[in-house]
Amino acid sequence: MSLSGFQWAARVSQIAPFHVMQLLARARQLQAEGRDVIHMEVGEPDFPTAAPVIQAGQDALAKGLTQYTPAAGLPELREAIAGHYQTAYGVDIDPGRIIVTPGASGALLLIAALLVNPGDKVMMADPTYPCNRNFMRLFEGEPQLIPVGADSEYQLNVGHIEQHWDDRTRAAMLATPSNPTGTLVGKEALQAISQAVSARNGALIADEIYQGLTYGVNAMTALSVNDEAFVINSFSKYFGMTGWRLGWLVAPDNAVSELDKLAQNVFLSAPTPSQYAALAAFQPETIAILEERRAEFARRRDFLLPALRELGMSVPVTPEGAFYIYAGVDHLTDDSYQWCQDLLEQEFVATTPGLDFGLNGARKTVRFAYATDIEQLEQAVERIARFIRQS
Amino acid sequence: MSLSGFQWAARVSQIAPFHVMQLLARARQLQAEGRDVIHMEVGEPDFPTAAPVIQAGQDALAKGLTQYTPAAGLPELREAIAGHYQTAYGVDIDPGRIIVTPGASGALLLIAALLVNPGDKVMMADPTYPCNRNFMRLFEGEPQLIPVGADSEYQLNVGHIEQHWDDRTRAAMLATPSNPTGTLVGKEALQAISQAVSARNGALIADEIYQGLTYGVNAMTALSVNDEAFVINSFSKYFGMTGWRLGWLVAPDNAVSELDKLAQNVFLSAPTPSQYAALAAFQPETIAILEERRAEFARRRDFLLPALRELGMSVPVTPEGAFYIYAGVDHLTDDSYQWCQDLLEQEFVATTPGLDFGLNGARKTVRFAYATDIEQLEQAVERIARFIRQS
Ligand SMILES: Cc1ncc(COP(=O)(O)O)c(C=O)c1O
Ligand SMILES: Cc1ncc(COP(=O)(O)O)c(C=O)c1O
Repeated sequence: MSLSGFQWAARVSQIAPFHVMQLLARARQLQAEGRDVIHMEVGEPDFPTAAPVIQAGQDALAKGLTQYTPAAGLPELREAIAGHYQTAYGVDIDPGRIIVTPGASGALLLIAALLVNPGDKVMMADPTYPCNRNFMRLFEGEPQLIPVGADSEYQLNVGHIEQHWDDRTRAAMLATPSNPTGTLVGKEALQAISQAVSARNGALIADEIYQGLTYGVNAMTALSVNDEAFVINSFSKYFGMTGWRLGWLVAPDNAVSELDKLAQNVFLSAPTPSQYAALAAFQPETIAILEERRAEFARRRDFLLPALRELGMSVPVTPEGAFYIYAGVDHLTDDSYQWCQDLLEQEFVATTPGLDFGLNGARKTVRFAYATDIEQLEQAVERIARFIRQS
Repeated sequence: MSLSGFQWAARVSQIAPFHVMQLLARARQLQAEGRDVIHMEVGEPDFPTAAPVIQAGQDALAKGLTQYTPAAGLPELREAIAGHYQTAYGVDIDPGRIIVTPGASGALLLIAALLVNPGDKVMMADPTYPCNRNFMRLFEGEPQLIPVGADSEYQLNVGHIEQHWDDRTRAAMLATPSNPTGTLVGKEALQAISQAVSARNGALIADEIYQGLTYGVNAMTALSVNDEAFVINSFSKYFGMTGWRLGWLVAPDNAVSELDKLAQNVFLSAPTPSQYAALAAFQPETIAILEERRAEFARRRDFLLPALRELGMSVPVTPEGAFYIYAGVDHLTDDSYQWCQDLLEQEFVATTPGLDFGLNGARKTVRFAYATDIEQLEQAVERIARFIRQS
């Protein structure tokens, strides 16, 4: 018996593997050989989950809270999230519009399934988080990639909507703060985009998974501008809960029952111990810990950004959020993937090549994550400097 | 601003809401009003997760093991699962072929994304677990529903493959033990089906999520017959870990890298604390607990099955697995959904109407779950008897 005559579904070949996976595999190999690899490729905080959240998770397990929850999540968690929007952003959200998901990934899956017919386009910036593109492809949709640069702070703006929206465009997707660029969409830009999208009967999707991780500015939410936006969020990044697989989405009223139905089919429910643990995420003592960490991320950015610029890399827009610096390296190479590989081989610094985020200038850019401590970052900068001198 | 001009993707309307959700909502309401509802609609074990697994989960949290794992799962868990196939079923599986997923649901998602092009058919029995149909629809595929009855033990057989397979059929999907019927596919039937599917260059998908929960017979795996089957499994049912959201799939060698790529995009990784906890699931002291529970499920079935038959319900094939009895109630009603509603209103017994499992005889059947203790089941039978007398 053999599956050799069998072809995978066509969508599979339209989803490219991430280049960083090769680098990661090689980094692990080098580490196994005893090399001291510095990880600037990672997309998750280096801090462990805050103690009160850990404690709440352990308590839930002790109580045997291990069965399925309703597909849309524990009612008390949906309320706690609504409370968070009130406290942190001053917006009123009906908890019934909040759907708890297995990571922001689960929210992206639901939204793509809900909005995208085969052939439909969803407009998004290039560069962007690669999974955002691929969720659209998963459902036979088309990511409508708009090359963006420093002039729009690496974000979509109203001009892009006006210029590129067409008959098949169904939605525009923003990510603020952005992965990989760390840039934000400001309130006025958001308002203009929101109006332009609504005027075209489109849906607005806002990926706010790095919300809270901003430096020198305060985070906002697209919900304060457009109450009918689809907003994606996560306990992964600001709340430091990546492995717990917990996120949420806020949807317009009339989408909730359909999203709930999809959730009942595609994931049944988000992890139960994680949901109980997350109830502790909004407590003042947890927030105090998270705010300290935010300050630490700010210090790292304030070290790394000038250091990379000093090495001649171009970072034309100061990244104000997430934990990434998206740097131009065209003075060093015209193949940044190769450059990343060489840097790893010679100096054991792992980074993510621009290619993973799109096509726009992708071979001239590298993403550096500062989700590692400042001593490591200092060492990394030294190593990169030496690597540049010796190439 | 309004989304009123916006239509959801077409697939959404092809996925019907579960009727049992209405019943469940009503059951909760009745409970809130102080009614003593007996739950025979539930699809999860009533036992809490076994103590050694809880302990392992707590230990993982204490150690701060809360970051993403590789998308395909912790290597040590993949090895433990491979070890389980060896110990329990005597089959050798390369751990590299095992992908850890957020529940069997995550595995179903990956498999559907990998195999199903728009318009492709996947053959499956009617009645069947409703999400299996809907995963295919999610990807614009078509569940090719084959009405099955007592003559094939409510399962697909080789005759169905030969008769119904057509140009657009890409795969056949079995579920053994089956939800809702509790029936199994025997080894010879499986061999015949497997050969017929392979001869047509199709893929064989086996949903084995109730594996281990068999009574009077031992479980087997499709892998012992077809090494290239796509096999879906879960920690939810036999291992009693529903809310932890953890399952796995075993795939043919040449599918692994594509599935890994899909997993990197659609869920990033299964929950980390759950994965560490599951390492304790295969330990002898855990298995001892699970085997006691299995014996308890057997006792319940042995009580409930004759009791329902005595009430005149038809259960022509003895269910040998899972924790469901799929009973014909056509002597009582020609609308089993209404019957379920009335039973709930009058006697506070919640059940699942046949309609949720397909179209084939669906209005003449009801699924009774015995995932509740025997005293409750005894009471339920009394109440149902009274309900029947009084209707
Ligand atoms: C922009 C963006 N969106 C979504 C995700 C998904 O995160 P999760 O599923 O852990 O919430 C990530 C993770 O790196 C991300 O960077
Ligand atoms: C036949 C069948 N397959 C798959 C699942 C999904 O279970 P889980 O995602 O919890 O592993 C269920 C749950 O009830 C089921 O009955």
